[in-house]
Amino acid sequence: MKKHNFSAGPSILPQSVLLKASEAVMDLDNSGLSLIEISHRSKAFVDIMENARSLALELLGLEGKGYKALFLQGGASTQFLMVALNLLEKRAGYINSGTWADKAIKEAKIYDDIYELGSSKEANYNYIPKGYDIPEDYDYFHCTSNNTIFGTQMKEFPNSPIPMVCDMSSDIFSRTLDFSKFDLIYAGAQKNMGPAGTTLVIVKEDILGKVSRKIPSMMDYKKHIGSGSMFNTPPVFPVYTSMLTLEWLKGLGGIAAIEKENEKKARLMYSEIDLNPLFKGFAVKEDRSNMNATFTLENENLKDTFETMLKEAGVEGLNGHRSVGGYRASMYNALPLDSVKVVVEIMSELESKA
Amino acid sequence: MKKHNFSAGPSILPQSVLLKASEAVMDLDNSGLSLIEISHRSKAFVDIMENARSLALELLGLEGKGYKALFLQGGASTQFLMVALNLLEKRAGYINSGTWADKAIKEAKIYDDIYELGSSKEANYNYIPKGYDIPEDYDYFHCTSNNTIFGTQMKEFPNSPIPMVCDMSSDIFSRTLDFSKFDLIYAGAQKNMGPAGTTLVIVKEDILGKVSRKIPSMMDYKKHIGSGSMFNTPPVFPVYTSMLTLEWLKGLGGIAAIEKENEKKARLMYSEIDLNPLFKGFAVKEDRSNMNATFTLENENLKDTFETMLKEAGVEGLNGHRSVGGYRASMYNALPLDSVKVVVEIMSELESKA
Repeated sequence: MKKHNFSAGPSILPQSVLLKASEAVMDLDNSGLSLIEISHRSKAFVDIMENARSLALELLGLEGKGYKALFLQGGASTQFLMVALNLLEKRAGYINSGTWADKAIKEAKIYDDIYELGSSKEANYNYIPKGYDIPEDYDYFHCTSNNTIFGTQMKEFPNSPIPMVCDMSSDIFSRTLDFSKFDLIYAGAQKNMGPAGTTLVIVKEDILGKVSRKIPSMMDYKKHIGSGSMFNTPPVFPVYTSMLTLEWLKGLGGIAAIEKENEKKARLMYSEIDLNPLFKGFAVKEDRSNMNATFTLENENLKDTFETMLKEAGVEGLNGHRSVGGYRASMYNALPLDSVKVVVEIMSELESKA
Repeated sequence: MKKHNFSAGPSILPQSVLLKASEAVMDLDNSGLSLIEISHRSKAFVDIMENARSLALELLGLEGKGYKALFLQGGASTQFLMVALNLLEKRAGYINSGTWADKAIKEAKIYDDIYELGSSKEANYNYIPKGYDIPEDYDYFHCTSNNTIFGTQMKEFPNSPIPMVCDMSSDIFSRTLDFSKFDLIYAGAQKNMGPAGTTLVIVKEDILGKVSRKIPSMMDYKKHIGSGSMFNTPPVFPVYTSMLTLEWLKGLGGIAAIEKENEKKARLMYSEIDLNPLFKGFAVKEDRSNMNATFTLENENLKDTFETMLKEAGVEGLNGHRSVGGYRASMYNALPLDSVKVVVEIMSELESKA
C-alpha cells in the first residue's frame, strides 16, 4: 500500500533521491565501491561535498555574496551552542517563538547575557512575536523561521541593524526570501533537505572572528570554512543524500517552483481545517506555517474513527506533538499534493459521517 | 572487477551490511517507508538505537557493569572536547602517541592543564610511549589505542589509579581486551563499525557529574544518557548501519573470532614486509598495529611498477598518509584475508622482477 508520509522530521524525501542513495550504498557511480567505504579525501567525495555546498548557495541566491556553506554534524541543537561561541561577546537578542527557540536561548545563556526581545511562550507559542526593536549594540539577533511543533512561521523578517541569525531547520528551501538579509542560517537536514545526520550552516564570513574567547576547533566556523567543510570526517551518507535532494530541487525549478506547490498544499489543508466544523486550527491565522499545519479534532468521540480512516488510507505521522496534542500535517517539499488530498478527503468524509 | 579496499577510513564494510543498508534506504523491513524518512521516535527506530547500544556493550563484555553506550555525532574530534568538558576540573595526563592524540591534547588545553605523560612525537610517532607513571591526583588519564597514521598500537594498558579514557577509533571491536579497565571509550564509526557520521561513546556512569562547570547540553554525556542517546535527532543511517555491522560481528562469533582473522592478516602482511628487501616497516616491531601496517618501498624507481600492479589487481586505498609517506595497508575487521594475499603476492612478484 502506498504510504502518505506526514512525518515531522526525519521526513519524506523524493523517491528518485531514495533510489539513487540506495544504489550508491552498494556502488557509487560504477566505481565498484560503496559511497560509505571510500575515503572522504577521495576526488569522488570531495566533488560531492563541493557540489552540495555550491548547490545550497545557488538555490538560496547567495553565490558570490560573501557566504560559505558548511555541512556539519550535531543538528540544530549544536548550532545553539556554536552560534553563541562564535558570535556572542556581551549580549544578544532572541525571539522566543517555540520550544526550539527556547532551547537556543538556554544554551546561549551559558556564555553571556541573552535578552528575549519577544516571546509567545505565555500563549503556548500559537503566534509569532512582533513589534520588537533590535538594539544596535547587541552582538546579534536570533530568530526561528518556522516552529515545527506549533505550526507557526515568520512571514516577515526585520531589517536588523546587527547580524541576523536564523534557525531555518524546518522551512529552508521551501519559500523564496531575500536570504541576503541573514548573516547566518542553520538548518538540520532532516526536513526539507535530506536524512538526519548533517546540518547546513550558511554563514557570511565577515561576521566571524570578532569574539575574544578561544573557540574549540570543532565549534569554530572559521576552522570548518578553512578546511572546506572537512575539518574531520564528514557524515558522508547524509551529505550525499542532501546533495541529491538539492539537485532534485534545482531540477524542479528551484525554490520558486517548490514554493508554489507548498502554497497549494497549505491552502488545501487550511481551508479544510477552517471550513470543517469538526476541526480547529491551533496557530493564529496570520502566522500559520506552510510546512506544519497543527489542528485538533473538537469531538473526542470521533478520534478512533478518524484515526482508523487515516490508517486504512496509509497516512503516517499525522499525530501532533505532545506539547500541542491533536494532529500535525507536515507538508515538506517532497510531500505530494495528492497526500494532502487524501487527508482532506478523510476529514471531509468524517464530517459527513458525524 | 573486484576491488580490494584498504582505505584507512571511511573503510570497507561487510557486503551483507551494505546490502541490508541499501535495502533499508528504499524500504525498512517491509514497512513501506524508507529508514531515512521515519520519525526517530517511532518504535522501529527506537528499537534500532536500543539494539545498537546493547550490542556494543555485549560485544565488549560490559553489560551490567555500570556502563552506557551512546551513538553521538561529531566524530572523535568532538570527543576531544567533550571528554575535557565532562571530566577535566584541574589537570589531566595524556599520552601523545600520534596526530590524533596531539589534537586531543590541544583541544583539552583550552579548558585546563594537560600534562603529556609520554610522547613519541620526536620520533615521528613510530613507537608507543611506555614507562610513565600516572599521578593519582589527576582527573583522568587519556590514551589512544591505535594510531592509524603511523601504524602503531598499544599492546598493553596501564592499571590506572584514575579514570582511564581511550580513543579506540581505529581498533575498537578488533581484539579482545579487558574493556572494564577503561572508564570512557570513544570511537568514530568509520573504521570497524559503520559509515562516517556517528561516534560510539562507552562511559562508566559513576565518573560523570564531578566537574563544576556548566556543560552545554549537546556536550553533556549525562544529558545524552538521560535521553537514551536521543537528546536530539540522531544520525539515523549511520546508527542503523553500525547496528548491522555489530550484528554481523556477533554472528561471526564476536571479537574473539574476528581477532584471529585480524592476526592472520597482520602476520601475513608484516612477514612480507620483513622478508622482502624492497620494503621497510615504519613502526617499531613491538608496537606494530594489527589494523594499519605502514611501510615504504626502498627503491623509488620501482614505485610506478608497484602502483600499476596494485591498480591492475583492483587494490584501492593503499597510499600512506602524507606524515609518513609510502604505503599503509588498513586491515579492518571487514577486510578479507584474500585482499591481503593479493597485496602480498604483488610485493613478492615485485621482488622477483627487481
